Amino acid sequence: MSIFTVTYQLALADGEELDKKIRNLCLEQSVELPEKVLSKAIAEKIVGRVRQTIKRSDAVYEAVIAWPLDNAGTEIAQFLNLLYGNISLKPGIKILSADWSSLADTLFVGPRFGIDGIRDRFHIFDRALSATALKPMGSSVSDLADLAFRFAVGGIDLIKDDHGIANQNYAPFVKRVEACVKAMDRAARQTGQRSRYFSNITADAGEVEYRYRKAYELGADGVMICPHITGLPVLHRLARLDIDLPIIAHPAFAGPLTMDESRGFTPDFLYGQLWRALGADFVIYPNAGGRFSYNLSECMAVNESARQPYSPFKTSFPMPGGGIKIENIGRWTRAYGKDSCLLVGSSLYEYPGGIEAAARQFTTQLKEINYES
Amino acid sequence: MSIFTVTYQLALADGEELDKKIRNLCLEQSVELPEKVLSKAIAEKIVGRVRQTIKRSDAVYEAVIAWPLDNAGTEIAQFLNLLYGNISLKPGIKILSADWSSLADTLFVGPRFGIDGIRDRFHIFDRALSATALKPMGSSVSDLADLAFRFAVGGIDLIKDDHGIANQNYAPFVKRVEACVKAMDRAARQTGQRSRYFSNITADAGEVEYRYRKAYELGADGVMICPHITGLPVLHRLARLDIDLPIIAHPAFAGPLTMDESRGFTPDFLYGQLWRALGADFVIYPNAGGRFSYNLSECMAVNESARQPYSPFKTSFPMPGGGIKIENIGRWTRAYGKDSCLLVGSSLYEYPGGIEAAARQFTTQLKEINYES
Repeated sequence: MSIFTVTYQLALADGEELDKKIRNLCLEQSVELPEKVLSKAIAEKIVGRVRQTIKRSDAVYEAVIAWPLDNAGTEIAQFLNLLYGNISLKPGIKILSADWSSLADTLFVGPRFGIDGIRDRFHIFDRALSATALKPMGSSVSDLADLAFRFAVGGIDLIKDDHGIANQNYAPFVKRVEACVKAMDRAARQTGQRSRYFSNITADAGEVEYRYRKAYELGADGVMICPHITGLPVLHRLARLDIDLPIIAHPAFAGPLTMDESRGFTPDFLYGQLWRALGADFVIYPNAGGRFSYNLSECMAVNESARQPYSPFKTSFPMPGGGIKIENIGRWTRAYGKDSCLLVGSSLYEYPGGIEAAARQFTTQLKEINYES
Repeated sequence: MSIFTVTYQLALADGEELDKKIRNLCLEQSVELPEKVLSKAIAEKIVGRVRQTIKRSDAVYEAVIAWPLDNAGTEIAQFLNLLYGNISLKPGIKILSADWSSLADTLFVGPRFGIDGIRDRFHIFDRALSATALKPMGSSVSDLADLAFRFAVGGIDLIKDDHGIANQNYAPFVKRVEACVKAMDRAARQTGQRSRYFSNITADAGEVEYRYRKAYELGADGVMICPHITGLPVLHRLARLDIDLPIIAHPAFAGPLTMDESRGFTPDFLYGQLWRALGADFVIYPNAGGRFSYNLSECMAVNESARQPYSPFKTSFPMPGGGIKIENIGRWTRAYGKDSCLLVGSSLYEYPGGIEAAARQFTTQLKEINYES
């Protein structure tokens, strides 16, 4: 029988027994019935089985549980249910990792491009990438396109819509994409170097795929979705389509999943492992020291998982956002390495010399870093 | 300018100032830029505005913030982003309520049937409803159909697939629905009373809608989805389709959103308000005293919001699950009132007299309760 394994952190409440917590988990995420009412065949074939437990501290353990692959069938939705369906409602269970090698054949495809594929498309091989967002919401199409032009002239590699810029009347999707693509072309003619525009396609059911195709037809260089709003299976659906456009995943709405010590997912698991398996070419995550809440070692762990080579999937570009400013570009780039895409927002908008000068400051610094060190 | 309001609970960290937290929230969930770089027009038209603040305890406040409806446009996805996009990554912000009256015209449709519509379809007007789940995962189509038959002969009103029963090889979707519908028919011929079968249509992007239509064609009485797996916009999409089948929403994967004192949503907001607005005819939530983690007053608040009449939407049937057993049916029914649908699982499977007798015990008790009291 084919199986896959998931590693959990289990935090025991007062008086709770490890064996019982594991047994309950094995039942809850499969048959949802007490053992005594199960047939022998079901008990043997369907219920999860513990492979290993490790004590981490007084009341905290790690447990590796093996699950039948057939329980997930061929559906991402059902995999997510097995991974963290009903146990999401129970205390003291946190997901640390999954054995992706066994999930790659039947379920997950991973990124279509990955870091190498993106470098080939961007023709940038020896340094970290620069990225920024077009905002604020409420700007007109021509204002956003003008901003895009100025960022591009300043040399930003990747210019994306802010995730709050969807299809409002302020700047409707199709017109915005057309105008921003033109802005990229115009800037490229002026500078001889091409910046890339990624449009936000986060939308209601059905509409996301339409916008993905439309973005491609209109000449966008990539797209962004917020998979915790659209539904995680939508990200995977896009990654499987025959459309030649990289995908950025954005963490809006995902917060509580990764913000609790004893519940949910580690940031590493969500951004570095699950999103990679689901096909994100770039993973945006809340950077340490910004206005969000991860620490540096959590961010390093995301980078590590997104980039590690022993995976069945292509890599994902880590795209830390929040707290990265013109004045600390060097520090973050050295910390995260050349296979990162630094997302800088407000700091560019606040720069006294204006957008173009800010962009130039940002990108010049990236090129000057000695990546050997 | 049309606006909608959202009420937040704000918990201040040491040294954090209320005014600053509110100002940051108003900027973060709209323009995502510091005020000083905004044009006057954007600052006035796009940024959220505080309407009211109430002190709840030393460091906990409630704040009502008004947002321009145009920021959401006509998309549920963008509404969710405005509601809890980036702030989901920040500490100390919890959503308590929204002013749904202003959201009903352009965005949300609510349930297609509601409690009254369901009562008309079920021909049950004067009592609470009984519900159970077909399980375990791993059972064959004929095993599940046989179970469905026995539950129906015992008089259960609503028999649904367990949310872990999707489209695995064990019991593929189409064959399972066909067999369970036949089981309902056969039981109805035997008893003269009709039970209703709801099939689980939680699936990958695109496939959910196909299964909704297919369930209808095959004669199912309703469907169930896990909207936090499919994506919340998918639930709303189904509720807007011209398909005459009620929808149950199931909380799998939603856990961390409602389990933190100072973050996420109250259970009332998620199940009673948001799911109702998104079109759930039945809202399953983890019942107090079960194997999950809500307390009684949180459950009562969910019921209250799902059923309250001052909403622009039809009502949703509260469907508490977990901890309801044959021996305490009376207590829960009296606590939750006749406009509830009690979901009982394991207790029926464990009943010494077998499935049919268990079902009869359950349903007889519901009919004997004096709902006037």
